[in-house]
Amino acid sequence: MLLKSRIKYIQSLGHKKSRQEAGEFLAEGPKIAAECIRFAAQDVRAVYALKPWLEEASRILTKLDPGIVQEVDELDLLRLSQLQTPNQVLLLMAERPRSFPPDTVDQPILVLDDIQDPGNFGTLLRTADWFGIHSIVCTRDCADLYNPKVIQASMGSFLRCSVSYTEPAEWIDALPGQVAVYGTLLEGQGIFEYGPIDRGLILVGNESRGLSPGLQQRTTHKVTIPRIGGAESLNAAVAAGIVMSVLTRKL
Amino acid sequence: MLLKSRIKYIQSLGHKKSRQEAGEFLAEGPKIAAECIRFAAQDVRAVYALKPWLEEASRILTKLDPGIVQEVDELDLLRLSQLQTPNQVLLLMAERPRSFPPDTVDQPILVLDDIQDPGNFGTLLRTADWFGIHSIVCTRDCADLYNPKVIQASMGSFLRCSVSYTEPAEWIDALPGQVAVYGTLLEGQGIFEYGPIDRGLILVGNESRGLSPGLQQRTTHKVTIPRIGGAESLNAAVAAGIVMSVLTRKL
Repeated sequence: MLLKSRIKYIQSLGHKKSRQEAGEFLAEGPKIAAECIRFAAQDVRAVYALKPWLEEASRILTKLDPGIVQEVDELDLLRLSQLQTPNQVLLLMAERPRSFPPDTVDQPILVLDDIQDPGNFGTLLRTADWFGIHSIVCTRDCADLYNPKVIQASMGSFLRCSVSYTEPAEWIDALPGQVAVYGTLLEGQGIFEYGPIDRGLILVGNESRGLSPGLQQRTTHKVTIPRIGGAESLNAAVAAGIVMSVLTRKL
Repeated sequence: MLLKSRIKYIQSLGHKKSRQEAGEFLAEGPKIAAECIRFAAQDVRAVYALKPWLEEASRILTKLDPGIVQEVDELDLLRLSQLQTPNQVLLLMAERPRSFPPDTVDQPILVLDDIQDPGNFGTLLRTADWFGIHSIVCTRDCADLYNPKVIQASMGSFLRCSVSYTEPAEWIDALPGQVAVYGTLLEGQGIFEYGPIDRGLILVGNESRGLSPGLQQRTTHKVTIPRIGGAESLNAAVAAGIVMSVLTRKL
């Protein structure tokens, strides 16, 4: 049985303010839970799970203090979960210390400009991780890294990404030397005309407004994904996925 | 003022069964509403909108019988809407007659294998539309084309796509001649090694299981999106977007 106060506390972590006060967040579902335990066991504060999952996951659970692992029934899990259909296990995790944006650009870095949909934000982290991009610089109006929907959509990739919140235009201005800045704009050059890169910034604009004027101004390489059909635009995560795939390809 | 029975009916269209019985569905928000009126005025059965939108959209509204346009207040719109935050206008639309899968493959065709998330399904339509792919063949377990979340995520592209539900493996077997079938698999050849195509099938697998054995078997060109980092997989819509962008590129 779970204490009412405990249930209430865990439910409160759906809200950014509560997460920031507590420094804790939620990660749900077998896949994400397994990745959290495997890659960040030291950050796991509590595990609430159904019996079948506890049996199935017994091997990785040896990485944790047994005192923080609690079996719950389906009703309790439903009470704790942020998902419409709770998925076997819910982890309470400690937030990691906030990251700072990197001082130099010696690798490809993703820059997110007011990506507000948490599903898009999480999908962007997952895609960046796939393409080996692990440094993400965000405007302060982007979705919160620890939003349950971000964690869900990132599918564990949030563990491998360093995500910092800052004022990207000012950060770019303070970077030493020449930096290649790739921005997706309607009047750019076709993406397939760009060679693979081993460093540089890849800008991703807001879902409805696109790139802010400040970031457009700092774009040194204007990129377009050639359109053949009738859609007015692409989803931000899909567009960024295409740009990342082409710019990080091996020849 | 709206009749209670009318509100109840419109709310019921969030469910597939009600939509199928009624042959009607909902389309919300200024962008999608404008596209529906512009490209499918004959299918618009009713418009419910706030006053500012009616004023702003007065020009395109001339395409409709004024008798089907009704001003509502914010409270009524909230009652009618399937969105968490209603967005100015809601259209009641007639479903179009169901499409049949094409008899021949003289263009690129997208084949969706149990894409269950309506957001992914709609994003796939939007992306296909962008790349000029307007024929979509789906398994019967895919999300319903007229699910409000599909309409939302497709951003109007559902109007330009012919979407048919069938048994794709049997359909492929019945196609005349040799057909190139591109399937994304972990052990395929890198996507950038494939030239642009002017016809063929592009298979997209289920979000968690990937391609079914039957469709894997019919794959003539195994495609992989090279992975550099740690993510286990890509989001289905992002992966398909990358494959579509590369296969439809102009050299």
